[in-house]
Amino acid sequence: MVEILDGLPVAVDAMGGDRAPAEVVTGARQAAQELGIPVLLVGDPAYLSTLAPQPGVDILAASEVIGMDEDPGRGVRVKRDSSIVRCAEAVREGRACAMVSAGNTGAAMASALLRIGRLPGVSRPAIATVIPVPGSTPTILIDSGANVDCTAPMFVQFAQMGWALATERFGIRDPRVGVLSIGEEATKGNALVKEAHVLLEGGAAGPDVHFIGNVEGRDVMSDRVDVVVTDGFTGNVVLKTLEGGVKAVVGGVISALTADAAIKEAAKAVLPALTPLANELDPDTYGGAVLLGVEGVCVISHGSSGARAILNAVKVAHHAAADKLVGRIEAVIASGRT
Amino acid sequence: MVEILDGLPVAVDAMGGDRAPAEVVTGARQAAQELGIPVLLVGDPAYLSTLAPQPGVDILAASEVIGMDEDPGRGVRVKRDSSIVRCAEAVREGRACAMVSAGNTGAAMASALLRIGRLPGVSRPAIATVIPVPGSTPTILIDSGANVDCTAPMFVQFAQMGWALATERFGIRDPRVGVLSIGEEATKGNALVKEAHVLLEGGAAGPDVHFIGNVEGRDVMSDRVDVVVTDGFTGNVVLKTLEGGVKAVVGGVISALTADAAIKEAAKAVLPALTPLANELDPDTYGGAVLLGVEGVCVISHGSSGARAILNAVKVAHHAAADKLVGRIEAVIASGRT
Repeated sequence: MVEILDGLPVAVDAMGGDRAPAEVVTGARQAAQELGIPVLLVGDPAYLSTLAPQPGVDILAASEVIGMDEDPGRGVRVKRDSSIVRCAEAVREGRACAMVSAGNTGAAMASALLRIGRLPGVSRPAIATVIPVPGSTPTILIDSGANVDCTAPMFVQFAQMGWALATERFGIRDPRVGVLSIGEEATKGNALVKEAHVLLEGGAAGPDVHFIGNVEGRDVMSDRVDVVVTDGFTGNVVLKTLEGGVKAVVGGVISALTADAAIKEAAKAVLPALTPLANELDPDTYGGAVLLGVEGVCVISHGSSGARAILNAVKVAHHAAADKLVGRIEAVIASGRT
Repeated sequence: MVEILDGLPVAVDAMGGDRAPAEVVTGARQAAQELGIPVLLVGDPAYLSTLAPQPGVDILAASEVIGMDEDPGRGVRVKRDSSIVRCAEAVREGRACAMVSAGNTGAAMASALLRIGRLPGVSRPAIATVIPVPGSTPTILIDSGANVDCTAPMFVQFAQMGWALATERFGIRDPRVGVLSIGEEATKGNALVKEAHVLLEGGAAGPDVHFIGNVEGRDVMSDRVDVVVTDGFTGNVVLKTLEGGVKAVVGGVISALTADAAIKEAAKAVLPALTPLANELDPDTYGGAVLLGVEGVCVISHGSSGARAILNAVKVAHHAAADKLVGRIEAVIASGRT
């Protein structure tokens, strides 16, 4: 595996995302200044060279950009000097301890897979997303979009990798791992879920992974479970459904509290009390999803990421690198039977 | 199909649900009194006979109850005098115009299928659920749990039946029908979704059904789409995920606004402004899901339904019966090519 060296920067795809490069660069620079984490800005040298020099901020030139809607496989094959590909190479070559991109998700995955490489023993890398749970530690949802069609042994590895992330990222001692289904009983669910349930119940994920059985959609945003295992189709739908649902409810609250001048005035007294909740629910707080199962740390941020999201993504990436997340995953994969 | 006669009551499973019979009976009686909809209370005669007589409220004795966790197929086969089976029989025999149950969902489905019967031409009945959208008409999610494993032609019929419900229940003129996927492009999704997309794009659902292509999880609780078509596994997960998500956010708002005496006092001024939103998001407002594709109207309410939910379920059931929802479904199914 890639050796994580002290003082190595986090490579940041300066050109990736709807608000790149300005917001991305701002967030990365803030990470260097406020958190003392060195960053390597990867992107258009004409743009990046105009920035005022800053300690802890280096630049790696990349002349191309893979667009948000571009075909990921083709983009990565053809645009060898794209910022996202150069980020992955920086990790592989030991010039960066981790990478962060808010660009084309498929291209980030493909770059990480092709340039950083799959972790030995891992059948399919998967995307782990952090779901906020008001008043509790967040829930990790894996796979949230990398693998549309899955097999039961893949679920076992998702359980292992999600478990490793829960211990590393949130310091949860004995994370509860569940399979997403439509009922708690082992007999509930589609064929894939039932098969995965049997494997996990039988200890296929190794002695450390605490399998609690099936969980339901309503448990995702609750404190009943720490790691929710599902296929990439269902996971992506769940993630976006929650995103839309939270937005609709928060939007409804804001509309109600700004409907007229009188309520606006009255709401002034309560809004500060709602700010911590708003922050907790803001995806920017968590910096992005993590691609697990590759030989390095790859954080994939939301396309709409602003400076704060990028700052948090750099923090998450650095923490995972320093805490040897990849090593934890290697160990738990080795402890299982798949 | 079953002929809907004027003045026929809605059969209400008095014994079904976590809060049955008291709350269920209260809701049904309120429907009769406040809405003038006659109801037929079906259940334990020893209990029901203690109620004060009320105009528009009749009783049908049923000596058995299928428990919430009982195996549905077995329950319906063995307990022939159960309240839920007797409700379905009342519809089949023309003694009721529709049925409402907050009991065992599987048993309600099985009773409707076995006693009321499948609508000719419908391959598999499906459950349509109403998702509230703050500030807009609700979205219909179909299938939200009846069929765990689906085929593309089933999706076409779900689209047709969901379309019929959107026109009937919410009076939407040209409901926009989308398939739930993980990207808007026709190439995004799992094999089933891609195949269904091709069929619907090709007009398999008939000339009236306006197919807008793929939609994503974030669109479910938005005004982008009126009918979201998916398989029963994904639909059930989405439904419960939203339920949990809305509960978590609303719970977070309540916690924040009751954290101490000062904020509680300040919140008093804004809470009335939030009440309409809370009502809009409350599943009880919509009374329950509808089983579509059977030869009668069957409303399946949430197991936790209280009196208000049952009152609304009776209203929904009566409206569907009076408005000949089943006939609309028959017509749109006949207009398609599946």
